[in-house]
Amino acid sequence: MARKTGSNGEKTARDLRRAATSLFARHGYAAVSMRQIAQAIGVQAGALYLYTPDKQSLLADLMATHMTELLDAWQAEADAGAAPEDRLEQFVRFHIGFHAGRPDEVFIAYMELRNLEPDNLALLQKQRRAYEDVLEDILKSGVAAGRFDIPDTRLATMALIAMLTGVTTWFRSGGRLTLEEIEETYLSMVRGAVGLT
Amino acid sequence: MARKTGSNGEKTARDLRRAATSLFARHGYAAVSMRQIAQAIGVQAGALYLYTPDKQSLLADLMATHMTELLDAWQAEADAGAAPEDRLEQFVRFHIGFHAGRPDEVFIAYMELRNLEPDNLALLQKQRRAYEDVLEDILKSGVAAGRFDIPDTRLATMALIAMLTGVTTWFRSGGRLTLEEIEETYLSMVRGAVGLT
Repeated sequence: MARKTGSNGEKTARDLRRAATSLFARHGYAAVSMRQIAQAIGVQAGALYLYTPDKQSLLADLMATHMTELLDAWQAEADAGAAPEDRLEQFVRFHIGFHAGRPDEVFIAYMELRNLEPDNLALLQKQRRAYEDVLEDILKSGVAAGRFDIPDTRLATMALIAMLTGVTTWFRSGGRLTLEEIEETYLSMVRGAVGLT
Repeated sequence: MARKTGSNGEKTARDLRRAATSLFARHGYAAVSMRQIAQAIGVQAGALYLYTPDKQSLLADLMATHMTELLDAWQAEADAGAAPEDRLEQFVRFHIGFHAGRPDEVFIAYMELRNLEPDNLALLQKQRRAYEDVLEDILKSGVAAGRFDIPDTRLATMALIAMLTGVTTWFRSGGRLTLEEIEETYLSMVRGAVGLT
């Protein structure tokens, strides 16, 4: 079925994505009905199907879009020609900054993998792997240049991404520290973890 | 209502906790009914209420018990008189080992905070804080002894716990690395992150 276009259709599509993200994060995918999502944006349940064929497609689309935005944002910023330690710094600041503003999306990205059907899961895992490879490539080039001391770059990638993403579970703007102060402290820990001094 | 005791009652109580943990981790608390849990262990729904007053109490009990076991296991192992770097090593190995075998409990501990009623949430946050304080205390004593270089011990605590807990999202026994190899690599990253060389 063709998706509605035009300014009303676009606004509804945006509202739909926002409401679904918020409801999935609050209650979990399995506990949220299309009817609840429709109610949250003030349309009839039947009208949702102009925008998405079903709840599974909606979840897969939200999760894939989050990863696409992440990969695109990195591509737009990345300076692949810089020195490994500068690329690492750029990655740390980028990762914290991108995710800190999207706690619901990060929560869903972790929590709702269990609810993706196999084809959707395979696509998402490919996207996650592509993003992990961004960091691993930086770590490998730092090792190759003799700048980083890392026994296992794959393991270090998983460790650092978990560490950096963890900020979303407790960061609230207006708290004790600004995001910039947090980036600074995390950066110094990451530099230590990869053996840069 | 008094809880059933005796060997049958104890077995059912254990089965109930195991089934609820698995179902909550698989589908999310909000999507799981007491009836489903009863079916999973082969008893009538009404019989569950001999063991737990309601689903909220069951969730709170599972989450609090996980934290109590964690804190007790650490207390049983901890050597508070050791040097800060040895206590840090002990903590890293303990944390990875304890959590790697409990992926469902870790998943619920993160995901279902949103579903705890205020009193239950307050208790759980107190327990989490007590565990975070274990690590922060080690970090502070390392800083005081001039062994660690950490600008913000609270932030470092959050960063390191997120990094170490992340192992549960991908570790499966029989994979590329043994848990001991993983502990070794994480330990070297943690030592770097706190400025030990």
